[in-house]
Amino acid sequence: MEELKQRILREGQVLPGGILKVDGFVNHQVDPALMMACGHAFAAAFAKVGATKIFTLEISGIAPALTTAIALNLPLVYARKTKPVTMPDLVLMTSAPSHTKNRMVDIMTSPEYLGRGERVLIIDDFLASGQTTRALIRLVQGAGSTVVGIGALIEKTFEGGRESLEDVGAPIVALAQITSLEGGIHLA
Amino acid sequence: MEELKQRILREGQVLPGGILKVDGFVNHQVDPALMMACGHAFAAAFAKVGATKIFTLEISGIAPALTTAIALNLPLVYARKTKPVTMPDLVLMTSAPSHTKNRMVDIMTSPEYLGRGERVLIIDDFLASGQTTRALIRLVQGAGSTVVGIGALIEKTFEGGRESLEDVGAPIVALAQITSLEGGIHLA
Repeated sequence: MEELKQRILREGQVLPGGILKVDGFVNHQVDPALMMACGHAFAAAFAKVGATKIFTLEISGIAPALTTAIALNLPLVYARKTKPVTMPDLVLMTSAPSHTKNRMVDIMTSPEYLGRGERVLIIDDFLASGQTTRALIRLVQGAGSTVVGIGALIEKTFEGGRESLEDVGAPIVALAQITSLEGGIHLA
Repeated sequence: MEELKQRILREGQVLPGGILKVDGFVNHQVDPALMMACGHAFAAAFAKVGATKIFTLEISGIAPALTTAIALNLPLVYARKTKPVTMPDLVLMTSAPSHTKNRMVDIMTSPEYLGRGERVLIIDDFLASGQTTRALIRLVQGAGSTVVGIGALIEKTFEGGRESLEDVGAPIVALAQITSLEGGIHLA
């Protein structure tokens, strides 16, 4: 998606450890017009997968997942990293690595909102190693539902996430693909 | 806002400790059409305050703040509760009570995205005691900017937040007002 790619090239910053900082328009500050355009791009890409629910992980997945949910008019569920008192006593939980916090975090979802027989479209900000997406897939499948698509604003193709998720059998769509962060930002 | 009120009456649950659970359409699961309608309602209510930026607190403030940002086409900044490695070394930080976690949490924002001279519209899911909003106001004012409006999806009028924020001099708009949670949900 050209608009996102141009923004990454113009405003993205490469930090030590292979981290791409996009805090100015995706993470800490969100550009609503860009994010809505990304939601429409995901909606078009996944128009035919028959999704019944959008699923993401708090925090930075919420913005792209919400605009996709708006574009497709489907409910959005976001997995939580801490258990609020409003969650029931029994939840589905797994763990996933946090790249920006350098530790494993628990992620969980309430069976009230992710039950059996849903066709789930996973939307997140980044697809890198695929381990966060894999954790979301465990929650979806553990709930008795099916992953019908995986969308990421930005894929780091050199971290192998796409290949690691092939067994899921769901289409994977990234709106911008970073092929390397060595000596600058290189896009596909 | 009638649509939100009806949804609260139909699906809201009162939990011990005066907590109103709206996880089915606001917090854990989001109804995108309802949330977009709330964003348009805030945009209409604050059309004349001359806001230049929308500000909220992760996590549950993001959805209503983003739809408001979409409706007003203004950038959204969300204050963070943990410091990701992408944040600069020097940030603005304060603390706020978390009602759903029963402890104080640090909240912070990068000076990169909340600087001087902005006219800031604060949008959050709940207005209860006003302490979270007060913490966001400290960040805005600490950055050298001005709060021009405060919006909440749901106000618990019996917790005194609105009165406690009167000195800010900004209009306060709630889309639904809960006057009591004793023996059920009572709306204004």
